[in-house]
Amino acid sequence: MIYLDNSATTSPYKEVLDSFYKVSQGFFANPSSIHYLGGEVEQLLTKAKEQAASLLNVLPKELIFTSGGTESNNLAIKGIALQHQNRGKHIITTQIEHPSVLEACRSLEQFGFDVTYLSVDIEGKVSPEQVKAAIREDTILISIMHVNNEIGTIQPIEEIAAISQQYPKLFFHVDHVQGLGKVPLHLAHEGIDLCSMSSHKIHGLKGTGLLYIKRGTSLYPLVHGGGQQEEIRPGTENVSGIVAMVKALRLTFDNQKNKIDEISKLSRSIRECLAADSRIYINSPKTGAPHIINISVPGYKPEVVIHALGKKDIFISTKSACSSKHSDESAVLAACGLEQSRTMHGFRISLSFYNTEEEINQFCRTFLEVLDELSDVMGR
Amino acid sequence: MIYLDNSATTSPYKEVLDSFYKVSQGFFANPSSIHYLGGEVEQLLTKAKEQAASLLNVLPKELIFTSGGTESNNLAIKGIALQHQNRGKHIITTQIEHPSVLEACRSLEQFGFDVTYLSVDIEGKVSPEQVKAAIREDTILISIMHVNNEIGTIQPIEEIAAISQQYPKLFFHVDHVQGLGKVPLHLAHEGIDLCSMSSHKIHGLKGTGLLYIKRGTSLYPLVHGGGQQEEIRPGTENVSGIVAMVKALRLTFDNQKNKIDEISKLSRSIRECLAADSRIYINSPKTGAPHIINISVPGYKPEVVIHALGKKDIFISTKSACSSKHSDESAVLAACGLEQSRTMHGFRISLSFYNTEEEINQFCRTFLEVLDELSDVMGR
Repeated sequence: MIYLDNSATTSPYKEVLDSFYKVSQGFFANPSSIHYLGGEVEQLLTKAKEQAASLLNVLPKELIFTSGGTESNNLAIKGIALQHQNRGKHIITTQIEHPSVLEACRSLEQFGFDVTYLSVDIEGKVSPEQVKAAIREDTILISIMHVNNEIGTIQPIEEIAAISQQYPKLFFHVDHVQGLGKVPLHLAHEGIDLCSMSSHKIHGLKGTGLLYIKRGTSLYPLVHGGGQQEEIRPGTENVSGIVAMVKALRLTFDNQKNKIDEISKLSRSIRECLAADSRIYINSPKTGAPHIINISVPGYKPEVVIHALGKKDIFISTKSACSSKHSDESAVLAACGLEQSRTMHGFRISLSFYNTEEEINQFCRTFLEVLDELSDVMGR
Repeated sequence: MIYLDNSATTSPYKEVLDSFYKVSQGFFANPSSIHYLGGEVEQLLTKAKEQAASLLNVLPKELIFTSGGTESNNLAIKGIALQHQNRGKHIITTQIEHPSVLEACRSLEQFGFDVTYLSVDIEGKVSPEQVKAAIREDTILISIMHVNNEIGTIQPIEEIAAISQQYPKLFFHVDHVQGLGKVPLHLAHEGIDLCSMSSHKIHGLKGTGLLYIKRGTSLYPLVHGGGQQEEIRPGTENVSGIVAMVKALRLTFDNQKNKIDEISKLSRSIRECLAADSRIYINSPKTGAPHIINISVPGYKPEVVIHALGKKDIFISTKSACSSKHSDESAVLAACGLEQSRTMHGFRISLSFYNTEEEINQFCRTFLEVLDELSDVMGR
């Protein structure tokens, strides 16, 4: 199997799964229980949080564990909007955010919020100047992703953070789900107030995510309850999931240090091979994240190509999994200003630390073969 | 180890953990991915949902998987309140609900909702007549738990459901977290619109819960995103957690059928043994759920007793884990009208299908011994 759909989800590290199993079995007590067993589990939780904080260079109390990226994004956006609406009801985001950001913003429009969806250039980039120009007196939140999940564009987060910092009533949220472990981000940058992460995108398990909330930032919680996690995200903590996520984070950061250049190399070799074929357009910017390569093949139905590749045990995706069942068009490619012949015929190849040169060569060869076969069928 | 804190959390079934491991490893793809691997995982998810629906006698599309009981309760209460507020802004609940219900209701008061917190009798019971009398023209939601988590009182859910049914604009939500697998509840009862369940209370894993939403009932989602789970609870599904929860449900229902009488027997034997001691008051009603026995021992500091028992490898709790770190007083016992000598000195013994007669005998013996030892220390 050649799995190249790592932006949709990744296969969990064996060590992560083993930790999950061990903690679930040996440390099953409720961390809020005041007896010895509960205390042991609470300690484990504290240690996990401290380790995550040290890996991310933030404070333990700045980290809140959630059920995943979608919850983290919603908690950040709705949490700030509902808590600080007396300061203003304007939000700035971009047209190419993940659905959990876009839909969270749209849902706030029902409650009288006004949202500016910034356009992006042909490479999917938003400029700091655009952001600055969009700030109004009633703007309370900017939410912009670090790395785009479909085309890999890296946004100028630090520049935007620096702008945001000049406006004391403004909060800046970064969706770091696709960037985590692939593209460095200085989380503790003074201008970043909130940052979302997900476990299953870094070889962790589904059902766990993180939200970084800079100390002193108050949020309206999505769920209320027994007071766990500073009352921002109550509910019995998913201790095994949390320990597993922190382990995934550590292993991923090790990999990032040692293997990110390999991913860049594989990425370049995919670009070179595919760009040489006149049927194929490369949509991902050269300056984008190394693990995502988005291409268009006008005239070829994505589902048909995906199916043909699947038969050969190779797995890539059309657009993002989270929007794959809606319409045929990629909203991200459309926002980049590409024509329908490209927006309706997009493919995403997304790499992990596990992919090898051999796999990539085989993928490129097979991809072109599949196009040839389909051309024959289509009588071209 | 004698673990008698099963209402706080339970140890996971080995089969459940094994399923979780197997699915995480072998079916890691994103169920929304359109390739073959994604399709396989989607099928697994569909099968799990169908099995859960069949076990609970409801329709698959009436089930939404969440991150746990707290989220299920919040989604039900806020979801109905925000979606249907144009019909009215009055909610009825009781004074002895779980914090995730009470705090969700309180949070809605900030948005102009009016909440009636019904009182309970000395056994923690609310009467159908009380509920009926509290219904106003602007009432849109009744939220009442099935089995109380601290004292085990079983509320007259079916009678309340029958009343609710007479008011077409009223929704009835049941927090079934403590009842599931212990006390039968006819979920598909026409008057029940929403019902919350949690996996880790039935030997499943933390981080997974269920919300039953009767077909045709519309909710405002807590999180917005990629459209998964009928758009009511988007985000990449925690497939392994879901499969594990459904397995826990099946095993628990088997146990309920075959072993619930044993739990009742153990429960009676705890009552008899402890009631015979003049220092001890039994707070749980005889008609309550079999797995929860709440007692008070005036004059004895709960933490001290819990600590002494812990040293002998026996684990019980004071009140509910979700409120154990707040104040010393049990709000549930206080709402039952008990005196401070009892509300400040409560203990909860909660059983599982794993507890044996031998364990219970040893617990009772040790509990009385611990009281004796502490009496000596205190010089009584």
